[in-house]
Amino acid sequence: MSIENLSCNKSFNGWHKQYRHYSEQLNCTMRFAIYLPPQASRGERVPSLYWLSGRACTDENVMQQAGAQRMAALLGIAIIAPDTSPRGDMVADDNSDALGQGAGFYVNATQAPWHRHYRMYDYVLNELPTLVESMFPVTDRRSIAGHAMGGHGALVLALRNPHRYRSVSAFSPISNPVNCPWGKKAFGAYLGTDTTAWADYDASLLMQKARRFVPALVDQGETDNFLTEQLKPDTLKAAAHLSGYPLTLNRHEGFDHGYYFIASFIEQHLRFHAGYLAR
Amino acid sequence: MSIENLSCNKSFNGWHKQYRHYSEQLNCTMRFAIYLPPQASRGERVPSLYWLSGRACTDENVMQQAGAQRMAALLGIAIIAPDTSPRGDMVADDNSDALGQGAGFYVNATQAPWHRHYRMYDYVLNELPTLVESMFPVTDRRSIAGHAMGGHGALVLALRNPHRYRSVSAFSPISNPVNCPWGKKAFGAYLGTDTTAWADYDASLLMQKARRFVPALVDQGETDNFLTEQLKPDTLKAAAHLSGYPLTLNRHEGFDHGYYFIASFIEQHLRFHAGYLAR
Repeated sequence: MSIENLSCNKSFNGWHKQYRHYSEQLNCTMRFAIYLPPQASRGERVPSLYWLSGRACTDENVMQQAGAQRMAALLGIAIIAPDTSPRGDMVADDNSDALGQGAGFYVNATQAPWHRHYRMYDYVLNELPTLVESMFPVTDRRSIAGHAMGGHGALVLALRNPHRYRSVSAFSPISNPVNCPWGKKAFGAYLGTDTTAWADYDASLLMQKARRFVPALVDQGETDNFLTEQLKPDTLKAAAHLSGYPLTLNRHEGFDHGYYFIASFIEQHLRFHAGYLAR
Repeated sequence: MSIENLSCNKSFNGWHKQYRHYSEQLNCTMRFAIYLPPQASRGERVPSLYWLSGRACTDENVMQQAGAQRMAALLGIAIIAPDTSPRGDMVADDNSDALGQGAGFYVNATQAPWHRHYRMYDYVLNELPTLVESMFPVTDRRSIAGHAMGGHGALVLALRNPHRYRSVSAFSPISNPVNCPWGKKAFGAYLGTDTTAWADYDASLLMQKARRFVPALVDQGETDNFLTEQLKPDTLKAAAHLSGYPLTLNRHEGFDHGYYFIASFIEQHLRFHAGYLAR
């Protein structure tokens, strides 16, 4: 498995690094970033938090704008940030903001032309952790978090794979994609018109029938432009109520959809995950 | 004085805002950003820290990547981030990385074609504070900080105007521009070939003859690619030794020139300034 280091920056006495590698799942070259806290340079193996970004983002948004490294360094947690879709000239694309490169929606596409590359679900669930855990001093204790489309991805991955993740958190997640314009557009293209296949990728539908729980924390800004039409946190809350799911949903007056919101509450998310990763 | 609000984001319970206004000094339209801590929304007037960015940056780099808002909110300090030069189709430019738009070097240019717009020194010293202090709940207690070219600007402004600033700090400042390639290129164009005019904009030359002191903190990464040729912190240290200047210069093994370095130590800079702004 060939892998190329692209950048390396010291950050809070740990290291931020970007890598490029060939992904078998995605059938293309991918970039990801990892933040290794200082504990990892002192011979310790550290647990990891996967961060799934939103539409049109790459690994760089969270690493540059969330301010997560300070607490990751303090708590001894590695952060791994994959890209948001397969990319490249050979990879199918779309001009829409909810489909194509930068908007993989963390699904395994079944429909042409998407199925040749768009397998972000398996990439994040298996291929990337296998690579990371073989290369870096990280344990197999994993948590997962994300923003918007990435919040959807984090919740779906945790809800379907409770044995793989200790905890899950999200900022402004797309909570019920089968019922919002972005989700319908993406799922229709990636998964086809038979909507029964969509349920496996809908956090609200998964949460309401969940039997095995991964503790979940969700933060949502009240002045998020996408709140009502696209994100639907109330649907997630209702689903949690039905199954007795351990979901903490915080709503924040005045906060919007972007990284200024995320940076304001990232400390609480890191501390939340640390409480489960340490066990 | 017309001013237009461009954006508004809640951040650590304060507000990040961008504005566009016409600058008389710069003879063009300018953008700046301000972070108002939560204390400013509760009827308090707060002191301010001006942040001068480096070449090719705008107001957005520090606001998105430094993680300064957390401590600014805790300590009750406004942060004001001007742009790094005049900009626009009518403004002289250059393809060089040390001259033209994005590289105003915080001087008042005296040479054509630059003198029509490039007056960042007066803009930062007078015009912008007058505007900010008339519009926002900030006091006239000011400190100033910056990065690289902006570190040079912050040091020069504080050294020449000790009555205007309580404290000054810099990350990786261009400490002796009259003796480095970037500085020679910029000063030669903006100030002309008579190098006697350059001394007023050289932090090391100003510091070695300083009589009135603004406490200064400088942090420098040891693996900064520009350290030896362009930044020359040792020259600044020697200058401080000559005049007995209260300069604290910290060098950090493994850190480079970018915002991962700044974010790692921004808390110490905010706390340093808070100690002087509170008096």
